[in-house]
Amino acid sequence: MPANVPPRVYLQPGAPPELVEAVTSEATLVADAADANVIVWANIDGDGFLDARHDDIALVQLPFAGIDRWVAEGSIDARWTYAAAAGVYAAPVAEHALALLLAACRRLHECARASDWGKRWERAGTSLDGSVVGIVGCGGIGERLLALLRPLGASVVAVTRSGRTVEGATRSLAASQLNELWPIVDHVVLLAPATDATRSLVGAAELEAMRSTAWLHNLARGSLVDTGALLAALDDGRIAGAALDVTDPEPLPEDHPLWSHARVLITPHVACPPPVLLPHYASRVRENLRRLRQGERPLGVIDLDRGY
Amino acid sequence: MPANVPPRVYLQPGAPPELVEAVTSEATLVADAADANVIVWANIDGDGFLDARHDDIALVQLPFAGIDRWVAEGSIDARWTYAAAAGVYAAPVAEHALALLLAACRRLHECARASDWGKRWERAGTSLDGSVVGIVGCGGIGERLLALLRPLGASVVAVTRSGRTVEGATRSLAASQLNELWPIVDHVVLLAPATDATRSLVGAAELEAMRSTAWLHNLARGSLVDTGALLAALDDGRIAGAALDVTDPEPLPEDHPLWSHARVLITPHVACPPPVLLPHYASRVRENLRRLRQGERPLGVIDLDRGY
Repeated sequence: MPANVPPRVYLQPGAPPELVEAVTSEATLVADAADANVIVWANIDGDGFLDARHDDIALVQLPFAGIDRWVAEGSIDARWTYAAAAGVYAAPVAEHALALLLAACRRLHECARASDWGKRWERAGTSLDGSVVGIVGCGGIGERLLALLRPLGASVVAVTRSGRTVEGATRSLAASQLNELWPIVDHVVLLAPATDATRSLVGAAELEAMRSTAWLHNLARGSLVDTGALLAALDDGRIAGAALDVTDPEPLPEDHPLWSHARVLITPHVACPPPVLLPHYASRVRENLRRLRQGERPLGVIDLDRGY
Repeated sequence: MPANVPPRVYLQPGAPPELVEAVTSEATLVADAADANVIVWANIDGDGFLDARHDDIALVQLPFAGIDRWVAEGSIDARWTYAAAAGVYAAPVAEHALALLLAACRRLHECARASDWGKRWERAGTSLDGSVVGIVGCGGIGERLLALLRPLGASVVAVTRSGRTVEGATRSLAASQLNELWPIVDHVVLLAPATDATRSLVGAAELEAMRSTAWLHNLARGSLVDTGALLAALDDGRIAGAALDVTDPEPLPEDHPLWSHARVLITPHVACPPPVLLPHYASRVRENLRRLRQGERPLGVIDLDRGY
């Protein structure tokens, strides 16, 4: 897209006023997709954006971070340039991860299900203070989570694909060193994208290598965890519990044994509710339209070779 | 107690090794209460320390923060000097308060009770980011909580008896200005001691003045909240929910309607489990014995006029 040309944006019909304002502050809003050179999508579930694309579209701005579903079905391909909203989710999802970590420590899942006071200390929990949290896929969300964990006295082992030094982590590991992670952490938080490389990242061997007091938290995608192996590990007490915002299969069927497991807390893929996302996404849209207008590279452009 | 004389400490029988070490590092440990000039108690429930007192005891060090139970029955009186463990609870209780705040926002109580995935976003919650949290009784625990809330983007209105300016709070109110608090906050966190002045601090009028979207969190004592008024407010939807680590009566009877309320999360007075408290309490014991030995005033000495 040539520099200094205001983008003409087709915004998903029915988009909230915050997005209309973000678009009109930096670009021209057009009513018809045919007149546009940029698509800005609003629906976090993504439905419909595929139909709006045409040859003149220079960028499709998407409101979600994980694009695995569309890559898998071949509908996101190299013909168009897409910007995902990776990074925009950092604060909301890190907050949800912290909520799950604290709920696990403080046994809030058990408390919520109790119908009597019990014996004193029967449902007493532990603390994040002094604990070691392993963050697998420590990008924007993980770095934000790390900043929330430090004042609580938890230390972080950060795993990234490259093994780059993550600021504030007590140790930084590469994906190839993952086997060193499992025995040394009290909590594992999965935040890595769903790719071929991360499929069943956590299986029987990894669960076996974890401490029996450790919790597994998945806020990435269900495909990262072998559900059968997880259930077996929970049943055998090989790990202490699991907090899952994503599952495989998803939605998790009503009769699935994870629902009734005493040491499992499931939140139905709600780490970033749309009203919580909206102000963050509106800022991103504004920034990316400014970048397009000034001939800069938008944030979050998808690299199909990596898959995110 | 004269300066530079090592205290002779009667430590509760069966106290954990961490406390034995804290005592012996700064004082002489004696086996018999009759030979002691200081009592150090270990049991967080307090039972038994009354019997160990005698005329030569200069200080009774207690492991709990709230002494309302013993003041009410008249067994803590001006004849002895007591040090409560106020301050020692700051980090563990602030962590529990944060866990409850996040659970309320993220509707983890509802998620824990669900047995199916539900519709997308049906159980989606809100965020602490941008919310206003009122901390009633903003002492050591409250200041610690404030420090945990700031990186999450929440702002704090701090209420203290005096109305002193609490660093980091967007507004500091005196107890006499409490009526200004209720309409302006998304969460109320009760951390004030149980005294005559705080009995039924939250009743029908206060609940009526709160936002219908607001949550009440009680980590202080059950007596601060009128349980009947709370239940009525919850039933009528006048407030959004309640997270209670303490109740009135306590223990909460098995058939109490709060147990089955969809928008209530109860933890059975476990904000500071003994294993979590222990290292903090051991440090306090060590510090207070050092202070006694050097003729300084111990931390946490109880002022019976205030009642804490």
